[in-house]
Amino acid sequence: MTPKAVILLSGGIDSSTTLAIAREQGFSLYALSIDYGQRHKIELESAKKIARAMSVERHLVLKQDLTAIGGSSLTSNRPVPKNRTGDEIGRGIPSTYVPARNSILLSLALAWAEVLGSSDIFIGVNSLDYSGYPDCRPEFIRAFESMARLATAAGAAGGRLTVHAPLIRMTKAEIIRKGFDLGVDFSMTLSCYDPDEKGRPCGSCDSCLLRKKGFREAGIEDPVPSPPGGLFP
Amino acid sequence: MTPKAVILLSGGIDSSTTLAIAREQGFSLYALSIDYGQRHKIELESAKKIARAMSVERHLVLKQDLTAIGGSSLTSNRPVPKNRTGDEIGRGIPSTYVPARNSILLSLALAWAEVLGSSDIFIGVNSLDYSGYPDCRPEFIRAFESMARLATAAGAAGGRLTVHAPLIRMTKAEIIRKGFDLGVDFSMTLSCYDPDEKGRPCGSCDSCLLRKKGFREAGIEDPVPSPPGGLFP
Repeated sequence: MTPKAVILLSGGIDSSTTLAIAREQGFSLYALSIDYGQRHKIELESAKKIARAMSVERHLVLKQDLTAIGGSSLTSNRPVPKNRTGDEIGRGIPSTYVPARNSILLSLALAWAEVLGSSDIFIGVNSLDYSGYPDCRPEFIRAFESMARLATAAGAAGGRLTVHAPLIRMTKAEIIRKGFDLGVDFSMTLSCYDPDEKGRPCGSCDSCLLRKKGFREAGIEDPVPSPPGGLFP
Repeated sequence: MTPKAVILLSGGIDSSTTLAIAREQGFSLYALSIDYGQRHKIELESAKKIARAMSVERHLVLKQDLTAIGGSSLTSNRPVPKNRTGDEIGRGIPSTYVPARNSILLSLALAWAEVLGSSDIFIGVNSLDYSGYPDCRPEFIRAFESMARLATAAGAAGGRLTVHAPLIRMTKAEIIRKGFDLGVDFSMTLSCYDPDEKGRPCGSCDSCLLRKKGFREAGIEDPVPSPPGGLFP
């Protein structure tokens, strides 16, 4: 029987490439997206298109409203930082950090994996070209995996549980090249934290800037047009 | 400033006693309940009464529908086991186990704690008179704590984070005595996994049986009347 994997899918470049990697590795694909009240909720439309294009077995969209908890510019009306420089993006934790988000997303993935009888969870975090979120670091992923092995019935019975973070040490350009090679249709993806109501990127939030830099360094043209701007070098 | 604590509150004996312990330890109380689609959703009414009676600063009820994930008799229409013996309850993981539930609940508590600036999370798990859930074991709680310290901005900055599980090595009778001494009004609590529409306990699910045994051993009369039954010794 083909082993099943649960893949967290936001609809951006990283999670779409991660989904393609799981497919390349021969897993049967169960994509999980979370509607957590993110201001860029339109990313869930991208996730649906990608899930369909990649012929996943199932795409589950769960609601977990985090706006009642708040604490982030992605889940409140605090402004999203714009036009930050590369140095600024690398330094400190920005307001777009959503408290404990990856712990919550991975816990939901763990629950679904257990019900599906899957021992493999994929998450597209990376710790190089990223926004400085603590829960994107390799040590967090390893700690979550250790916890997850103790959390479940399968784990208590001695079962294996692996949290795959295949992008964790890749640059954005490397991720884009990898996704490109695996046939990811980047025209379906949305990276922007602050898109307009039609899902068009702002061009100047951290996520847009990292995307621009990544495509430029990869020598690939981004099929999603983005406004110019950004002081990013 | 009084330190803040986030306390997971289901509305049963264990979480109510845990809330009273956090109060006794001098914390300012932030109670968190999760409406996860549990069949005994009426327990949330108990949680509200208890939160009010304990004068919490705030009681947040978050929705996280786990019925789409399923895998448990508490989140699906699989029957809840009844009239199991003490030996049966101690052996194996029953169908009332909700996959990864405590990972999910603690992750949500972690998110709220971070936003509140709290370093203390309380959960009323216990590993003696319990139903054999893997995520009630001390090693799970410690692993979650290690993960949580790496997951958050506060943790990344070197901050402390403690997951308190004050009941973890107590019997149900000891928990009831402790709650009684701290003034918990057990008439407000609901333990049953399968109550009727008015919130009256079934008297024969594992949780009802453990409650009966606990009150009997504590030498205290349960203020909540429960039908007789249960082969529990």
